[in-house]
Amino acid sequence: MYSVDLNSDIGESFGAYKLGDDEAIIRHITAANAACGWHGGDPMVMDRVVRLSKEHGVAVGAHPGYPDLMGFGRRRMTLSFEEAKNYVKYQIGALSAFTVSYGIKLHHVAPHGAMGNQCQYDEELSRAVCEAVYEFDRDLIIYYCAGAVLGKVAEDMGLRTAAEIFADRAYMDDLSLAPRKMEGAMITDEDIAIGRCVRMIKEGKVTSINGKELDIKGDTLCVHGDGPKAMEFVRKIRKTFEEEGIQIKTL
Amino acid sequence: MYSVDLNSDIGESFGAYKLGDDEAIIRHITAANAACGWHGGDPMVMDRVVRLSKEHGVAVGAHPGYPDLMGFGRRRMTLSFEEAKNYVKYQIGALSAFTVSYGIKLHHVAPHGAMGNQCQYDEELSRAVCEAVYEFDRDLIIYYCAGAVLGKVAEDMGLRTAAEIFADRAYMDDLSLAPRKMEGAMITDEDIAIGRCVRMIKEGKVTSINGKELDIKGDTLCVHGDGPKAMEFVRKIRKTFEEEGIQIKTL
Amino acid sequence: MYSVDLNSDIGESFGAYKLGDDEAIIRHITAANAACGWHGGDPMVMDRVVRLSKEHGVAVGAHPGYPDLMGFGRRRMTLSFEEAKNYVKYQIGALSAFTVSYGIKLHHVAPHGAMGNQCQYDEELSRAVCEAVYEFDRDLIIYYCAGAVLGKVAEDMGLRTAAEIFADRAYMDDLSLAPRKMEGAMITDEDIAIGRCVRMIKEGKVTSINGKELDIKGDTLCVHGDGPKAMEFVRKIRKTFEEEGIQIKTL
Amino acid sequence: MYSVDLNSDIGESFGAYKLGDDEAIIRHITAANAACGWHGGDPMVMDRVVRLSKEHGVAVGAHPGYPDLMGFGRRRMTLSFEEAKNYVKYQIGALSAFTVSYGIKLHHVAPHGAMGNQCQYDEELSRAVCEAVYEFDRDLIIYYCAGAVLGKVAEDMGLRTAAEIFADRAYMDDLSLAPRKMEGAMITDEDIAIGRCVRMIKEGKVTSINGKELDIKGDTLCVHGDGPKAMEFVRKIRKTFEEEGIQIKTL
Repeated sequence: MYSVDLNSDIGESFGAYKLGDDEAIIRHITAANAACGWHGGDPMVMDRVVRLSKEHGVAVGAHPGYPDLMGFGRRRMTLSFEEAKNYVKYQIGALSAFTVSYGIKLHHVAPHGAMGNQCQYDEELSRAVCEAVYEFDRDLIIYYCAGAVLGKVAEDMGLRTAAEIFADRAYMDDLSLAPRKMEGAMITDEDIAIGRCVRMIKEGKVTSINGKELDIKGDTLCVHGDGPKAMEFVRKIRKTFEEEGIQIKTL
Repeated sequence: MYSVDLNSDIGESFGAYKLGDDEAIIRHITAANAACGWHGGDPMVMDRVVRLSKEHGVAVGAHPGYPDLMGFGRRRMTLSFEEAKNYVKYQIGALSAFTVSYGIKLHHVAPHGAMGNQCQYDEELSRAVCEAVYEFDRDLIIYYCAGAVLGKVAEDMGLRTAAEIFADRAYMDDLSLAPRKMEGAMITDEDIAIGRCVRMIKEGKVTSINGKELDIKGDTLCVHGDGPKAMEFVRKIRKTFEEEGIQIKTL
Repeated sequence: MYSVDLNSDIGESFGAYKLGDDEAIIRHITAANAACGWHGGDPMVMDRVVRLSKEHGVAVGAHPGYPDLMGFGRRRMTLSFEEAKNYVKYQIGALSAFTVSYGIKLHHVAPHGAMGNQCQYDEELSRAVCEAVYEFDRDLIIYYCAGAVLGKVAEDMGLRTAAEIFADRAYMDDLSLAPRKMEGAMITDEDIAIGRCVRMIKEGKVTSINGKELDIKGDTLCVHGDGPKAMEFVRKIRKTFEEEGIQIKTL
Repeated sequence: MYSVDLNSDIGESFGAYKLGDDEAIIRHITAANAACGWHGGDPMVMDRVVRLSKEHGVAVGAHPGYPDLMGFGRRRMTLSFEEAKNYVKYQIGALSAFTVSYGIKLHHVAPHGAMGNQCQYDEELSRAVCEAVYEFDRDLIIYYCAGAVLGKVAEDMGLRTAAEIFADRAYMDDLSLAPRKMEGAMITDEDIAIGRCVRMIKEGKVTSINGKELDIKGDTLCVHGDGPKAMEFVRKIRKTFEEEGIQIKTL
């Protein structure tokens, strides 16, 4: 029996600003990556998102990012090891105040945006993230992009991990995501995209943008929550997975 | 046998900005009110302050404030009940990431600046603070200015409380602190200031700025950590308390 | 011949967060109140909004607010006179960098949110706003809610002013806006709303929520730019004004 | 007759946080680089600093930085060309509100911290800075570290420039500053440091950390304003320059 976790970034609204449709996507996923107030999210949003997750039986993880609300955490910043570690720890702790209040357990940590991207190659930053998690709660699962050094660093430290795959993104030969501007980087045909997911999960294989066959591990699939089309796509994924005998469940 | 807790605000530095001498004051106190990143403090500072507190056996509490770094949390803001509650909860959680990491227990919560001042009279804000604490960890002690409605609200909710007194400030007839600009608001003579503390702790009495005798409860005395004179004053307090049979200890 | 200015708040997006439809509303107004980065807006947004305004021949004014992005500048903050004055000046200057770059002249200043609301009654805050404007550029027009003390303070200082009226809001007997929660506070019938505007502009009269006839001055009418319904309403206002012989033009 | 400008970073305090001694250093310099609220400085500080500069006849320039108060603008951030340009423009405009108010003219722009460091090699960032300046006011002088690509970009655009030199820092063979951690990076002997300055100004020569003779242009010398030792050093520089026939004057 095959199985996969479905995760989505949520709680990225801030104050008067609304981003994504948390109430809609929460019904379709098994794990929520909740923003922690630095690149998005605020305590009102975090409270709502944790309550929503509890109501829908969705596992809540922290989605820490750089202190860059104006850039939505998508701009690379050069932090020291200690800064990165303490910044991640702060954000996990802040979110945990809400999971504790609702009597649920924090489930995982998934670095956001530029921080997540840098964890593809940057061993020091990856260690900073993992040490923050390890010192706070070593039961938390590290969500890493399949192929990222973050996964290896986490495993070396004895942390639990989940390899994340993407339905709509092409892979380079080293399993990094093809840059969005590259021709063919976005898998726009939904059936092809879903077929690729099924193969990644069942066979552990994916074809790179250059046509190379790659081994890939897919524990959790990232889906998006903005727009009616996104929601339709998630429903289609769920239906296909059911037909293919892939169980969707929390890790 | 009389006893009192000595507390001080610490960890109010931010990035390149240094405020107060945490390393010096930590040696003289039994409880530290640590800023949580909103009116002051940042995750690097919080990590250092929690480690320092552990090394010196000092109890660490959260010192949450308004989201107003530019005003150091000293400017009144009109928050809704839910905003105040979630903002306090966020900050306590963030700090707890560091106490958890160092294997110590968070001890208390003391609202900072304008938030603290409003808790003198504002029952709704006081309830917001107390509910945040209650939902996160009902063992935390609420530090309130002696006479503040915050103390009553906390007790009604079944939370543990500590009444805070000040050595260098005069009291109005209703136990609120005399505004700094009022003539006689600051007790500048150190011997008189210390004598007032001894009386508050041993007799539960203080003379108001208008000459009225007031009942007051003093569980914890607030001392300051900036400047060599401040440190000298703390040493003098400790010495006098010893002679007067007042034990200085964590609540 | 009657005339009125049509103004709208624009440029309130921030980073990844989009708020309102600036491109749509700009086609229907004669004055834009541009957020300056504190309660909303960022330099990318400000650049775009000033360029848009230039393209459409719309006058650009500054819309300064409190340093409270999380609360969108809608929460009351207690600033000193000097703080308020320097905060407003900073924001006007920041916006002027973009008007200067595009070779257009800054036109007016309209305080946002809680700052604007406090200028209804608060003479000191009103003076702080006006002194900031006076010292930076005394040709700027102060936009104030009809009836607000801000208008009087500005005129006493020799500044040009424009009284702002609202189509969709009921007035109290002192010309302050009826609080949104009050029954009847929102004028939901579009024809009634527009009829009230016509009367305010042509007769200088409005009926308060209590049925009292009030004198009112309407130099500029505030319209909103969010949603297709809002845009339809603006078109209807423009059409009616044309029929009624009210010319829509920049002050 | 030789001459040089003496500049210093000032106005880097923020809210309750004090950094540097602006009142002291302002007496010894001819140009002040004033922080604009993003890496340091706030509108209260900016107002004070511009007033101080006017009182002492010191030229005021903008010292824009990255939006990173927590890192004091010293951490590299990856901004797009448009972001960098608009961020710089915003900050210059904000500062200009205060120079306009005091009736003085903004004099120059000197990028701060990591932004300044990146302008050593980064042509795109340098162009962003220069375009911001060019569009706002092409009379402003660009202060660049001697040898930086920023100087060349500014000159190609027709902007006025000033090459900045440092008394206490060693140079690499390409005129970049030797990293602080490198052995010999800091010139600690005051007499040697001052001798190097005199030679840079009069002969246009400096010896690199590797012993190589380099051509260098020194229009403006950067001095620091923190601590009594710093102030003593500045006085010594001024005295030596006088003896050596180097006139200290605003560019």
